[in-house]
Amino acid sequence: MIYFDNNATTKVDEEVAEVILKYMTKYYANPNSIHKFGVEVENDLEEARENIAKLLKVSVNEIYFTSCATESINWVLRGVAKANSNRGKHIITSSIEHSAVISTLKDLERLGYEVTYLKVDKKGIVELEELSKSIRKDTILVSLMAANNEIGTIEPIKEAYKIVKEKNKEAYFHIDAVQALGKIPFDLEIYKCEFASFSAHKFHGPKGVGILYKKTGSRIFPLITGGNQENAMRGGTQNVAGIIGTSIALKKSCEHIPFMNSEIKEIRNMLANELKSMGAEIVTPLEDSVPNTLAVFFPKIRGDIIVNALSEEEIFVSTTSACSSKVNSTSKVMREMGYDEDSSKGMIRISLSYLNNHEEVQIFVNKLKNVLKFLNY
Amino acid sequence: MIYFDNNATTKVDEEVAEVILKYMTKYYANPNSIHKFGVEVENDLEEARENIAKLLKVSVNEIYFTSCATESINWVLRGVAKANSNRGKHIITSSIEHSAVISTLKDLERLGYEVTYLKVDKKGIVELEELSKSIRKDTILVSLMAANNEIGTIEPIKEAYKIVKEKNKEAYFHIDAVQALGKIPFDLEIYKCEFASFSAHKFHGPKGVGILYKKTGSRIFPLITGGNQENAMRGGTQNVAGIIGTSIALKKSCEHIPFMNSEIKEIRNMLANELKSMGAEIVTPLEDSVPNTLAVFFPKIRGDIIVNALSEEEIFVSTTSACSSKVNSTSKVMREMGYDEDSSKGMIRISLSYLNNHEEVQIFVNKLKNVLKFLNY
Repeated sequence: MIYFDNNATTKVDEEVAEVILKYMTKYYANPNSIHKFGVEVENDLEEARENIAKLLKVSVNEIYFTSCATESINWVLRGVAKANSNRGKHIITSSIEHSAVISTLKDLERLGYEVTYLKVDKKGIVELEELSKSIRKDTILVSLMAANNEIGTIEPIKEAYKIVKEKNKEAYFHIDAVQALGKIPFDLEIYKCEFASFSAHKFHGPKGVGILYKKTGSRIFPLITGGNQENAMRGGTQNVAGIIGTSIALKKSCEHIPFMNSEIKEIRNMLANELKSMGAEIVTPLEDSVPNTLAVFFPKIRGDIIVNALSEEEIFVSTTSACSSKVNSTSKVMREMGYDEDSSKGMIRISLSYLNNHEEVQIFVNKLKNVLKFLNY
Repeated sequence: MIYFDNNATTKVDEEVAEVILKYMTKYYANPNSIHKFGVEVENDLEEARENIAKLLKVSVNEIYFTSCATESINWVLRGVAKANSNRGKHIITSSIEHSAVISTLKDLERLGYEVTYLKVDKKGIVELEELSKSIRKDTILVSLMAANNEIGTIEPIKEAYKIVKEKNKEAYFHIDAVQALGKIPFDLEIYKCEFASFSAHKFHGPKGVGILYKKTGSRIFPLITGGNQENAMRGGTQNVAGIIGTSIALKKSCEHIPFMNSEIKEIRNMLANELKSMGAEIVTPLEDSVPNTLAVFFPKIRGDIIVNALSEEEIFVSTTSACSSKVNSTSKVMREMGYDEDSSKGMIRISLSYLNNHEEVQIFVNKLKNVLKFLNY
């Protein structure tokens, strides 16, 4: 099996999985229990929070655990909207955000909020001039992704933050950092914001754990109320095993960032050249993207045909994002970048991780050649 | 170590943990991916859903996965309130519900909903006559727990459902079944309702998985929007490993129900007699409770003193529920039952599981005798 679908989800790191196993069967107490067993588990949970805070360069009380990035994103968008509606009801985002952002903002529009969707250029980069013009007195939140899930484009988040704060100091800035963390040097000293969302299963952690960064003092309502867990901001017994596993997965992922930006980037770029020579058009802007992602299309061939043919050979790549691929295999991101409908139906996304290697890419290329031959391409 | 805090959380069953490990490191695909690897994982996920549906005696498309019971409860209360506000804004619950229910309803009160909190009698049983009188034309939801988390009282849910439907057919009925599932024979053919919430980590499944039953046709809005997962009702990549583990944990738990209601109940009742002879007052109504739970107090001794002293001996019991024990060790449930403040501060909750045995109870009794002697009781 060759797994090149790491933007959809990743294999849980073996060491991480072993730790999770240990916290499920040995250190299984409820971290909110007052007895020694509970307190020990709570200490381990808080140590995980500290380790994550250090890696993200924030303070420990600014880190909250959720069940996934989609929950984190819902929490930010809905919680900021509700807690700040006295200041305004205008929110800005881009037209190429993940469905967690878009669906939630569509819902907020039905509740009377106004949303501006910024356009992107041919590389998938958000137009900053348009951002600057869109910010109003009643803008309460700007939500942008750090890197696009489908094509890997790195967005000008630092510049966007500056523009937002120059135009309206009160407007909050949220970074959907799901596809950036573990792929490029990413911390919240470099990338300033009031809120940031992360997903463990995108960096070899388990499914079922999300992280929310909330800058001290930022006004937000909880999404899920209940007990006093997570500083009374997120009810529900914490997924201790998953969270502790996540802290290790994040550490290992951060250690692999140099490798991602040398070897993996090199492999990705070589692959881009190979595919180009086979007739593919390269969608990902190689110089402005995370190092692991390569989106391409072969003119006049639907992406799902190639994805399914490769799948039969035990090679796993994707069309668009997993979260929307079942409904429609047209890449919404490509459409927004200006590609026509046919080209956008052709997208193939190859997304690598530090577990991949050059040999796999060679096998992939050979199998793809066979597939294209079979399709008379 | 003797672990008698199974109402707070349980040890993950070893077989369940092994399956979770397998789905983290081997079958790790995103179930929403279109390739074969994704489809295989999706099939396993859907098989887990089917198995759970069968155990609960409902159809498979009525089962939704969440991150915990607190999320399920928030989803029901907030989602039903919003989706049915045209019919009314009145909600009924009891005064001894879990903080997930109470906190969320307090929040809904701030949003203009009206909540009736039903009183309970000396056994902690909800007063049905009061329920009957409280139901109005604009009542949209009645939310009651099947078994109380602190004292184990089984609530008259079947009768309550009948009363609700007689008085107002349109009002929805939600069961918080967290503390009933796996302890008494529980399925949704016996316990009729439109919604029911469950938590995996209370029946030897992992933390981080909740279940929501939603009867076909019941009107509710999503709590977490995003991709089209969970029939577009709950965004976010499913915690596949945790969910498949949960289905096995539930099966095993259900198989242990006869054991729980014979051996474990016998042990619990014997323990009650022992503690009584040592001066304890029994709070749990033994004949009207789940078989694993025993709440007692020793007049004039604070519960946390005993809990902490036992904790030093590696014996783990609790004061009130884990979700509120850090803030206040007064049992809110005992207060509602009519106990005074001092007695309510004395609560000790012993909660057993099918992993416990008679020998542990003997050790517990002996250690407790030492503790009481040390306290000059």
